Amino acid sequence: MVNHKNFQVDIIGVQNIHAIKKGDDISEIILLATKLQDTPIAKQDVIVVTQKIVSKSEGRIVSLNDVTPSIIAKSFAKSSGKDPRLIELIFMESRSIVRSDPDRGILIVETEHGFVCANAGIDSSNVESDSDTVTLLPRNPDLSAKKIRSELEQKSGVSKIAVIISDTFGRPWREGQTNIAIGIDGINPLKDYRGTHDTEGAVLTSTKIAVADEIASAAELVMGKINRVPVAIVRGFDYPTGECSYSSLIRERSRDLFR
Amino acid sequence: MVNHKNFQVDIIGVQNIHAIKKGDDISEIILLATKLQDTPIAKQDVIVVTQKIVSKSEGRIVSLNDVTPSIIAKSFAKSSGKDPRLIELIFMESRSIVRSDPDRGILIVETEHGFVCANAGIDSSNVESDSDTVTLLPRNPDLSAKKIRSELEQKSGVSKIAVIISDTFGRPWREGQTNIAIGIDGINPLKDYRGTHDTEGAVLTSTKIAVADEIASAAELVMGKINRVPVAIVRGFDYPTGECSYSSLIRERSRDLFR
Repeated sequence: MVNHKNFQVDIIGVQNIHAIKKGDDISEIILLATKLQDTPIAKQDVIVVTQKIVSKSEGRIVSLNDVTPSIIAKSFAKSSGKDPRLIELIFMESRSIVRSDPDRGILIVETEHGFVCANAGIDSSNVESDSDTVTLLPRNPDLSAKKIRSELEQKSGVSKIAVIISDTFGRPWREGQTNIAIGIDGINPLKDYRGTHDTEGAVLTSTKIAVADEIASAAELVMGKINRVPVAIVRGFDYPTGECSYSSLIRERSRDLFR
Repeated sequence: MVNHKNFQVDIIGVQNIHAIKKGDDISEIILLATKLQDTPIAKQDVIVVTQKIVSKSEGRIVSLNDVTPSIIAKSFAKSSGKDPRLIELIFMESRSIVRSDPDRGILIVETEHGFVCANAGIDSSNVESDSDTVTLLPRNPDLSAKKIRSELEQKSGVSKIAVIISDTFGRPWREGQTNIAIGIDGINPLKDYRGTHDTEGAVLTSTKIAVADEIASAAELVMGKINRVPVAIVRGFDYPTGECSYSSLIRERSRDLFR
């Protein structure tokens, strides 16, 4: 008795995506690549797109040569051995500093979006061989997701897909980074089991699963860091729709015991 | 040009697993269920098993009627409205309290294993209709994973598989729980990209990905909370082997800025 409904999810890496430049049409590039590898987008797919290519296409690229470090940035850079211009840029992208350890060069901040992460999500890998160039997070990652989703749906004629913009963040207490959702459209990022009954008949009281983050993590397994696989299709997951914003994934400061 | 090597990962939920009781042979039950649904275990598979059934099979079940709450537990229970016997059990399973908020009934602790989580991982859902029964985390989840893995390999004749024991934990800053790895055998939980070159030729300096946690998250997508799908096969991921322990995923207290 095989019933694949909800019991199999496939994670498909999208290959043949070239280096992205400012102004590139991400949806067009995804559609072309998925056709090339004979896995066209289908209804109910979740398309996970790594932040890096979204930021590049939106021109969220900064040359550190254009940044003048403040005295505070210089001071932090001195004790950490980091580039003072990078530190300045992190400060500029941050709403507040959650933790800092200058000796180890660690800066955990709250970004203007409300994400709590190291270095305000600024990434210096995979940009240009010029190591003075870095990417910032998209200014409004939900809007980035919405744009890609509506264009994908329009151009492909396929309806009811979802788009997640992902990035790899560290976390307290545990080693290693995991991929999470920083921009969302077409999927409710939380699956709410409260009030439902488990298999033994007990009512679940507190379980909300961050499915958007789990989908982003699943996608990372085919993306890797080395290969150019910045997009993945997650197929077969019966996801919740409804309210769609990364802000649903951010715990209010007043309810957070760790800042 | 389709090349599926590393570019497709399938997550298969294992159905037909009945309610688990103390002494049940998890590996036998998994093998039977995978045969029933015609998806036998194959080389390189990662088998993700939810903590709940491992704990049950190992008899890590406690009736709250057997717990006598201390004065401190009673006091915390009074302000939070929680069961004082459950609070006492959380204290007994904990090495230290990381944060507590009695008014909201929140207890974030470090377990005897070193996991930082709410309520020491004690779970009252899906045990028995008797709501006084709860499960504790396995005493040594790596050993639980090792036992299941070696028995699966022996009984099936398939070599080179990995086993992850998973549980859903909350996290700071973000809403919703995600599934993570609490016990590991046959897979190095961290994929280390440091020193490798990215697509633009830059050397990556700080990226370690917690692939075991990402695999656990991917598995949750087919497990759900309501259906009885406590086991998933993650197929097609070329995972790192080598050092295998959940302890690699735990940040040393001295390097952790959040406790």
